[in-house]
Amino acid sequence: MLRKIQMLLQQKKFIQLHELLETLNEADLAVYMDELEGKDMILFYRLLSKEKAVDTFAYLEPDVQERLIQALTDSELKEVTDQLYMDDVVDLIEEMPANVVKRILRSVDSGQRKVINELLNYPPDSAGSMMTIEFVALKEHQSVAEAFATIRKHGPNKETIYTCYVLAPGRRLIGIVTVKDLLLSPEDAKISDIMETSIISAYTTDDQETVAKKFDKYDFLALPVVDHENRMVGIITIDDALDVLQEENTEDFEKMAAMAPSEDTYFKTGVFMHARKRIMWLLVLMLSSTVTGMLTMRYEHAFEAVPLLIAFYPMLMGTGGNCGSQSSTMIIRGMAMDEIHLKDFFKVLWKEARVAVIVGTALAALTGIRILLQYTDAPLALTVGLALVATVLISKILGCVLPMLAKRLKLDPAIMAAPLISTIVDMCSIFIYFNIATWIMHLS
Amino acid sequence: MLRKIQMLLQQKKFIQLHELLETLNEADLAVYMDELEGKDMILFYRLLSKEKAVDTFAYLEPDVQERLIQALTDSELKEVTDQLYMDDVVDLIEEMPANVVKRILRSVDSGQRKVINELLNYPPDSAGSMMTIEFVALKEHQSVAEAFATIRKHGPNKETIYTCYVLAPGRRLIGIVTVKDLLLSPEDAKISDIMETSIISAYTTDDQETVAKKFDKYDFLALPVVDHENRMVGIITIDDALDVLQEENTEDFEKMAAMAPSEDTYFKTGVFMHARKRIMWLLVLMLSSTVTGMLTMRYEHAFEAVPLLIAFYPMLMGTGGNCGSQSSTMIIRGMAMDEIHLKDFFKVLWKEARVAVIVGTALAALTGIRILLQYTDAPLALTVGLALVATVLISKILGCVLPMLAKRLKLDPAIMAAPLISTIVDMCSIFIYFNIATWIMHLS
Repeated sequence: MLRKIQMLLQQKKFIQLHELLETLNEADLAVYMDELEGKDMILFYRLLSKEKAVDTFAYLEPDVQERLIQALTDSELKEVTDQLYMDDVVDLIEEMPANVVKRILRSVDSGQRKVINELLNYPPDSAGSMMTIEFVALKEHQSVAEAFATIRKHGPNKETIYTCYVLAPGRRLIGIVTVKDLLLSPEDAKISDIMETSIISAYTTDDQETVAKKFDKYDFLALPVVDHENRMVGIITIDDALDVLQEENTEDFEKMAAMAPSEDTYFKTGVFMHARKRIMWLLVLMLSSTVTGMLTMRYEHAFEAVPLLIAFYPMLMGTGGNCGSQSSTMIIRGMAMDEIHLKDFFKVLWKEARVAVIVGTALAALTGIRILLQYTDAPLALTVGLALVATVLISKILGCVLPMLAKRLKLDPAIMAAPLISTIVDMCSIFIYFNIATWIMHLS
Repeated sequence: MLRKIQMLLQQKKFIQLHELLETLNEADLAVYMDELEGKDMILFYRLLSKEKAVDTFAYLEPDVQERLIQALTDSELKEVTDQLYMDDVVDLIEEMPANVVKRILRSVDSGQRKVINELLNYPPDSAGSMMTIEFVALKEHQSVAEAFATIRKHGPNKETIYTCYVLAPGRRLIGIVTVKDLLLSPEDAKISDIMETSIISAYTTDDQETVAKKFDKYDFLALPVVDHENRMVGIITIDDALDVLQEENTEDFEKMAAMAPSEDTYFKTGVFMHARKRIMWLLVLMLSSTVTGMLTMRYEHAFEAVPLLIAFYPMLMGTGGNCGSQSSTMIIRGMAMDEIHLKDFFKVLWKEARVAVIVGTALAALTGIRILLQYTDAPLALTVGLALVATVLISKILGCVLPMLAKRLKLDPAIMAAPLISTIVDMCSIFIYFNIATWIMHLS
């Protein structure tokens, strides 16, 4: 399809291209625009119908939006900002450089400017910064027919019309009515009689992750947002909640792999930025594994006496790291999904300990038998086997204790993932390994 | 709240409890039910109004559903299965043991039973097994007013009414109309004039992950599902897509931590099952790190000549593992999010190589200087520094090549994550380290 679009552009068959573009979905149009070069991209955009153009704009990547805004005339820009929902305008302003922001703010009227400033004031990653202010408000004394009239009048500019909010004086949220309820009720029914009054809402200051999880739990299409005086100020729609969930998952993946989370996609992040995001944790972890190295040197006498001890060193450290990584991943993910809570601490600890004993014993038995067969060295088999059980146990316990401790200290549990736990487990397992060796083989 | 519920149950204040429960959300009710013991749980359920009871049932964990079904009378069970959407009934049947399945199938009528059998025949994790058959179908010659009449008549039993599907003879899907379109159009407008004809749909055999990603990309509330003769057979709603996204993310987390993915939550999985899910990969990885250990023994002469070489061994292996983990996580996640494709292979490789050179050089310089200061041993500093650059480079390259290779071979890229890459990198870095040492320090 992209090739066809490029061909039509080259051949200047604009009418044909316009007709083709009208049949495509806006999310796809945005992807194609992303692939086009400067002038073609602008031309492509101008070939879209007004409605399609604005919807496509909302799906574009920030860098394409920036290039596009630079090329648009003031009146074209005004068309975009007039039609975008407030949350999208605010997202745009947060992404754009200062000179583009100035142009955007010049293109909106003073009422909009006031709202934008208010929305920009909410902390980043809060419900306030996610929400939009365009929702359908109803009054409790209205009838169903009147409600439909309100929806028909104000609906076109609202992000969703399917959930309507019943407000009392002072913008106090007293009920929720869905269009389904309205459609299935008689025309003269009172809103107050059909509205749902058990309301689940978010505060403007709630964390975006908490909000997104509510969508996951309750299967909402939209969630009302209230301020601390309980006045309704906006709504969050499920498409934005879905984006936040995916963002938060990506962040967890990155943190768990010892990286600073990034805002941009892989390709949009420059090489130096990639390096910067990765080097911090590498330095920290390098420092701690240097300590492990020094610790190893304290047992020089042991591996000088029995050089074969070194042969099991990578296996012990590797297994410890992997076991710790398994447990911490289970616990971090479980906490992120609200399946594991801090009050379950001892339950988790007991479960991991039992899993560790089973896994550790099985691995130790196999390794011990292999060593016996290969080297016919019983003390070595015993040493490695015991060290393996201890390493598995320690790594599984650290793998559940550290993430839960982080949560208790209000840190993100995701930082207590495989990389950090591996280095700590390494240290412990070296210490245990050589001490068991010294003891069993009388090396001191 | 749970304590209040338990108290009211104990004091047998059932009317008061019933009134309290009516004000609560079904997802929350399900959580409370999960916490109650046998008889209390059944009592709690019977205190719910019919409508609330069925909605709550859909939110329950499978083991609670099972206990509940065992306790329900046949007519109570029929009420549940009559009211549940078909996709929920099918999910239920897939989770329940044979004797419960028998009771469920006995409670539905023969028409339902036929549909259930059809849905059960779709491969697990396919669009067919996710979809439900309750949707609003319209005809193109209908007017808006007639469409509303259809919605009012059939709407109560449909999972969503907000997106309606326009079918031609033979159940061919020719258009989509949203209730928003209907509300904002004049009553006498023809459906064929207002329907959207550029349709994005899924096939019954599409993978559930592909389907869920479409929701993420296009911001749909529902997606039509067609069979291979292009007949519309059902819809998938966004709440189910959200669940699938979260499930797939959890699976990726588990695979990337070297575990077999589990279907159940952490606590519902028994200790032995946990051990089984974790031990397979541990064994494989243990075997490969044993090879690393043996490789190390080939260089016994080196660390006997310069024991200090061992001190940098954990640091090298740790850094290699962490660098590989960073790259593979970026690539795996990027591919899962459709940001990185196989055609980007060389672009990714070139980017990772440059990042590796920057990161490797920085770490090597720091480590080299530290060794110089601490041991005033230039050959050692050079050896460790060079080995570090090589390790970082290899690990970052493997970290992007292996996941992309897996994808090319139609395997899940997530298995090429930190644990496996670490073991491979370990082997390479030991080989490089001792060879550089032998060369620079003339050890052979």
